[in-house]
Amino acid sequence: AWQTDNEYGCHDTTISYSPAAIRGFRAWLADRYGTVGALNESWGNVFWSMEYRGFAEIDPPAGTVTEANPAHALDWKRYSSDQVVAFNRVQADILRALSPGRTLLHNYMGRTVEFDHYAVGADLDAASWDSYPLGFLEDRVVEDAAWKRRFMRQGDPDFQAFHHDLYRAVGRGRWWVMEQQPGPVNWAPYNPDPLPGMVRLWSWEAFAHGAEVVSYFRWRQAPMAQEQMHAGLLRPDSVAAPGLGEAMEVAREIARAPRAGAAPGEAALVFDYESCWGWETQPQGRSFDYFRLVFETYRALRRAGLSVDILPPDTADLSPWPLVVAPGIMRWREPFVDALARFEGVALLGPRAGAKTAAMRIPDALPPGLPQNLLDARVMRVETLRPDAPVALARGGAFGAWREKLDTRAGVVEETVDGCPAVIAQGRVRYVAGWADPAAMFRIVGEAAQVAGLAPLDLPPGLRVRRAADRIFAFNHDAEAADLAPLAPLGFAGTIPGAGVASVPPI
Amino acid sequence: AWQTDNEYGCHDTTISYSPAAIRGFRAWLADRYGTVGALNESWGNVFWSMEYRGFAEIDPPAGTVTEANPAHALDWKRYSSDQVVAFNRVQADILRALSPGRTLLHNYMGRTVEFDHYAVGADLDAASWDSYPLGFLEDRVVEDAAWKRRFMRQGDPDFQAFHHDLYRAVGRGRWWVMEQQPGPVNWAPYNPDPLPGMVRLWSWEAFAHGAEVVSYFRWRQAPMAQEQMHAGLLRPDSVAAPGLGEAMEVAREIARAPRAGAAPGEAALVFDYESCWGWETQPQGRSFDYFRLVFETYRALRRAGLSVDILPPDTADLSPWPLVVAPGIMRWREPFVDALARFEGVALLGPRAGAKTAAMRIPDALPPGLPQNLLDARVMRVETLRPDAPVALARGGAFGAWREKLDTRAGVVEETVDGCPAVIAQGRVRYVAGWADPAAMFRIVGEAAQVAGLAPLDLPPGLRVRRAADRIFAFNHDAEAADLAPLAPLGFAGTIPGAGVASVPPI
Amino acid sequence: AWQTDNEYGCHDTTISYSPAAIRGFRAWLADRYGTVGALNESWGNVFWSMEYRGFAEIDPPAGTVTEANPAHALDWKRYSSDQVVAFNRVQADILRALSPGRTLLHNYMGRTVEFDHYAVGADLDAASWDSYPLGFLEDRVVEDAAWKRRFMRQGDPDFQAFHHDLYRAVGRGRWWVMEQQPGPVNWAPYNPDPLPGMVRLWSWEAFAHGAEVVSYFRWRQAPMAQEQMHAGLLRPDSVAAPGLGEAMEVAREIARAPRAGAAPGEAALVFDYESCWGWETQPQGRSFDYFRLVFETYRALRRAGLSVDILPPDTADLSPWPLVVAPGIMRWREPFVDALARFEGVALLGPRAGAKTAAMRIPDALPPGLPQNLLDARVMRVETLRPDAPVALARGGAFGAWREKLDTRAGVVEETVDGCPAVIAQGRVRYVAGWADPAAMFRIVGEAAQVAGLAPLDLPPGLRVRRAADRIFAFNHDAEAADLAPLAPLGFAGTIPGAGVASVPPI
Repeated sequence: AWQTDNEYGCHDTTISYSPAAIRGFRAWLADRYGTVGALNESWGNVFWSMEYRGFAEIDPPAGTVTEANPAHALDWKRYSSDQVVAFNRVQADILRALSPGRTLLHNYMGRTVEFDHYAVGADLDAASWDSYPLGFLEDRVVEDAAWKRRFMRQGDPDFQAFHHDLYRAVGRGRWWVMEQQPGPVNWAPYNPDPLPGMVRLWSWEAFAHGAEVVSYFRWRQAPMAQEQMHAGLLRPDSVAAPGLGEAMEVAREIARAPRAGAAPGEAALVFDYESCWGWETQPQGRSFDYFRLVFETYRALRRAGLSVDILPPDTADLSPWPLVVAPGIMRWREPFVDALARFEGVALLGPRAGAKTAAMRIPDALPPGLPQNLLDARVMRVETLRPDAPVALARGGAFGAWREKLDTRAGVVEETVDGCPAVIAQGRVRYVAGWADPAAMFRIVGEAAQVAGLAPLDLPPGLRVRRAADRIFAFNHDAEAADLAPLAPLGFAGTIPGAGVASVPPI
Repeated sequence: AWQTDNEYGCHDTTISYSPAAIRGFRAWLADRYGTVGALNESWGNVFWSMEYRGFAEIDPPAGTVTEANPAHALDWKRYSSDQVVAFNRVQADILRALSPGRTLLHNYMGRTVEFDHYAVGADLDAASWDSYPLGFLEDRVVEDAAWKRRFMRQGDPDFQAFHHDLYRAVGRGRWWVMEQQPGPVNWAPYNPDPLPGMVRLWSWEAFAHGAEVVSYFRWRQAPMAQEQMHAGLLRPDSVAAPGLGEAMEVAREIARAPRAGAAPGEAALVFDYESCWGWETQPQGRSFDYFRLVFETYRALRRAGLSVDILPPDTADLSPWPLVVAPGIMRWREPFVDALARFEGVALLGPRAGAKTAAMRIPDALPPGLPQNLLDARVMRVETLRPDAPVALARGGAFGAWREKLDTRAGVVEETVDGCPAVIAQGRVRYVAGWADPAAMFRIVGEAAQVAGLAPLDLPPGLRVRRAADRIFAFNHDAEAADLAPLAPLGFAGTIPGAGVASVPPI
Repeated sequence: AWQTDNEYGCHDTTISYSPAAIRGFRAWLADRYGTVGALNESWGNVFWSMEYRGFAEIDPPAGTVTEANPAHALDWKRYSSDQVVAFNRVQADILRALSPGRTLLHNYMGRTVEFDHYAVGADLDAASWDSYPLGFLEDRVVEDAAWKRRFMRQGDPDFQAFHHDLYRAVGRGRWWVMEQQPGPVNWAPYNPDPLPGMVRLWSWEAFAHGAEVVSYFRWRQAPMAQEQMHAGLLRPDSVAAPGLGEAMEVAREIARAPRAGAAPGEAALVFDYESCWGWETQPQGRSFDYFRLVFETYRALRRAGLSVDILPPDTADLSPWPLVVAPGIMRWREPFVDALARFEGVALLGPRAGAKTAAMRIPDALPPGLPQNLLDARVMRVETLRPDAPVALARGGAFGAWREKLDTRAGVVEETVDGCPAVIAQGRVRYVAGWADPAAMFRIVGEAAQVAGLAPLDLPPGLRVRRAADRIFAFNHDAEAADLAPLAPLGFAGTIPGAGVASVPPI
């Protein structure tokens, strides 16, 4: 049993590791580094005199005086992820051998980053996930109380879409909703009733993002045991609950509409599990959260009305997208850098990109560490900021949480009010030197989209759009009817009811 | 050692159970269910495949993956309470045998619900409790900062009275204050000095609620050890502390006044320890707290100027009271339902009443599950709400924390603004379909009282009244003098000083 | 392993003590008390029937029912401190024997009170400490968000100075800065970049307080391991970082200025580690923190423009100082009381002074327990207050956190609005009967200074002054330039730039 410390030194909780887990970690390290000397060198264990004399001395990264080496902590997370991948592969192999011809998949969750889903997905036929818009709004969306009150019966307008796009990438195009929330659940801090229409909206949104299946959890509310307060399509007395009618309506609508499928995205956004682990290991400031950084970028793309594809960090071909956005990538992968060099679209990178080597070190030439012909810039200094003390940008909005001071010969697109480069551009590569707040993020993303030849819109927070193969869908996540004027360039007109779905052409 | 999870999945603390406690639990379960098959059936262990093969496999409800079955958790609380009852009985038997003729009692505490006090009380001659108005205001009354500041030197105006009435029920009419706070204590987050007059007020309030004895803790402040900062009637140097004079004044007043004793209550309020355990096991929303629900109902009755008797949930005769109020009763007891059927007063039930069976399941016919001739209503759906997002009632105030959607043929007395029945009435039975905020609670309770033939007042928060056998007492819990006009219907006139006591007729 | 409880009964964390630590504690107790009977008598173990039958029954003060005896807890802290002292002595002895002629010292930290630094310092040649103004502002200075935002790139204007003065006392005049923050660090909740000029300001401030050495941590930022995000004087690529230029500037300035050294202080302030342990053991209210009480007093002295010397609690000669201030001294030491009796300056004592005996008991004659000819006053009652409910003083400001009701024949200098003595004076001894807020603290300290013949100023929060041997230094901790008018009596004129240093005569 070890006490684990959070990043600021407070005891969080006590974790016990099984001897098998510890042995496995040592074997994994021996496999990765060959000799303990190579591990000591890679981790920099000379610092604080923490060199190991053999793999058998290495424990999980907990219980050390002060804190564990971040390379140690990152390797533990890599090892843990690899174990999940390996365990899934064993099961998949058995199932393929004994039950051939089936679609193998697993159901993932919202904002779950403990293992590399791309790697697990590579051994399966499709991805699926459990979509609980109201529960997730309360327990894992990071927004203020006014936002949560506004969307308490609808869910966050971008959170489901983000995971639809993420798991479409994990399933290499094939994905389902395995569990769709059909009413109040039992496990969130507060469990309100969805607004009438939301079960239909959530279902159509999944199809617009390319879901093959939307399955509701659960069929009948169980009258006993742990989940007895989790609504189903039927009440515990087997009478229809409100969600059933909406599910049936969607079924009728699908029958008379062609299978939509997701259209190719206009923008690509890179999501990298390893960056998540790296910045969790070394946030440098209490507000730094990689998932949130990527999700806020996604929200800005959605506000601009763009349909998004999510990419793994080692994507080798960026040519399908006019715009590729990649915030917070801890270390560059060779195929991606090669693809960047060939890329003819616009790439928007940073902040905190290329900030580490694979060994969790600061690169010798300093971040972001791209070839000089792609981006001639070095991060001289970084700082993390109190949430109440952001650094304003000259054109509005601000950098909060994270900012970098650059030494660069690239063109300066935006500056901070204290006179540092905030956004730079060199050819088709743009770099953002801080964590932009929503106002600045929207402007920065929108300008990159314009340069890329796209026609960004400016949608209100509840109104969202998704291009499907045969039509464009609009979704109104607000309780009140919304004017479709912001979508006029896409052919929409009139109004869309609260919790409503519209499409061009109509279904 | 197990990690216990709170209801939202965070590790709270580590608890170790003794082998004897675990063996005792298994024996208690075997006694209750006979066979492990019956237990599996009752708990619904088929859910999540958690069936046990024998009682020896059953542990305390901690350390399970995700969470324990709520029936398991509730049985653990019942077992724990039964152990307290059994242990008390052993001691009571010894004392009765070896020291006959004495009044046996135990001193209970404020807001302590871990065991069934009625069951312990049944083996004793009287109840008593430790009344620390200032300490309890700070550490267990749930009100906002303005309220706590207003009453920081007086204590909550209803908290002591509630426990006086509760423990009078536990003592079947006989009760004492075993420890009365006489000055600042040492254990609350903040320990201010009581306002002059409060020791006298607290003492008289106890007598007005029927206390046989008010005993101050402590006689002399100890100069050493854990409680050296806990004031007594004497200072550590044996000189009189401020509380002594007030205690002596009350002694003189009692000598010339007849022994008051509590008059029979005008309203009865049901308090049920098992409901406490049930809703603690399955709050469904972070704000749901059974004690608070009952206490807020009590406060509304006190605001209406009503003297209250507290009843156990299996009370078989409701005829003495014009009004019986029972919020949040997890499961109906047969004697109570029988008494309701014969009852000629007004019964105000709900919310979340009859919501479970004894096996912690949703009843087959759905809550509240009273015979149709008493209340023809079914709860179709429930939801819990963010504290900042209550559902307004058409006549003012709102439902927060909890609300139900009813299918009913009873008369609709009040509606929510979103058009659902909020208060219904069928004959003499009324049902409230949500957790009413103070404004709505006062109106709903007050109307029920009027229908019951009572004459509810509307008292300011600091002014309270209690009917004793031979007179009516008024207590001013505010620091400033108060106008007695709101009590004119009871024969009071003029003003009452801050921290003052008045009575009709005067003492 | 024991669960430790915080002072209000919540389980905090689990601590395991080694058998050696427990044996050591028992031996220490046997040494201190001789017999277990004497220990029982001293601790007052008769209370709650906690008498021990032998030293072998005594454990660390954790895991007891409810809480440990405060004398037990305090002795554990004394024992723990003694162990640190003894361990340091062992090492010092070895080094003196094997490596004679060197300056032995140890580097202390900010706001670290777990051992008696005076006692450790007595075995060393000099003191040193690690000064991280920005990190400490975020993680251990207790001020509101506006204050932290104002000084986020400069650090608290008094926190470094306080520790300079404290460790000068610990080093008996000799002290260094062992680690001076040269840029953003990696370990605080937020890690901003210092304002240009602050590395120079911090360096000069240390010299003005008498530092012999200012050493920057670190030379080069390490590209790997735990502290890779901790700035150095050089970047990881060995290029100069911003702090280097400022350090070089200070080096040039020192070369042409005489070695300043600290001038003797105008006021003395007593800091007592044992009082820290005592009030941590028995805070009596959530807001009571001895370090904060002393530090707020120090800030008031600095606002008055006074240079301060810090004294240990057993100081036997107070004659060098016109003004001696000693808040919150748990128990008087004989040399100090003797010195007080001979003292011809002004002594400002209280609140909560002399409140315990060495055995952690309330003194028989009640606090503050000074000889009647020094101060004829007794504390009749104490109370701790909600942060939102202070007791106002008639002349402005308020007592918060702590207040005392006195029985006294001394002159009343100030009263609370509820009519109790707030500040009393008997000859040259003044006593404050509560924890004064900044406004009241400044007035009380300032008046005491005036009576002592000093000429207190009234400086804005960011402007501070320190008398060195050959000149007076002014430091502007604000980002903006400041008017030097408040320092005109000291010969300053004009303005001082943001993050700037000035001196009379100029360097």
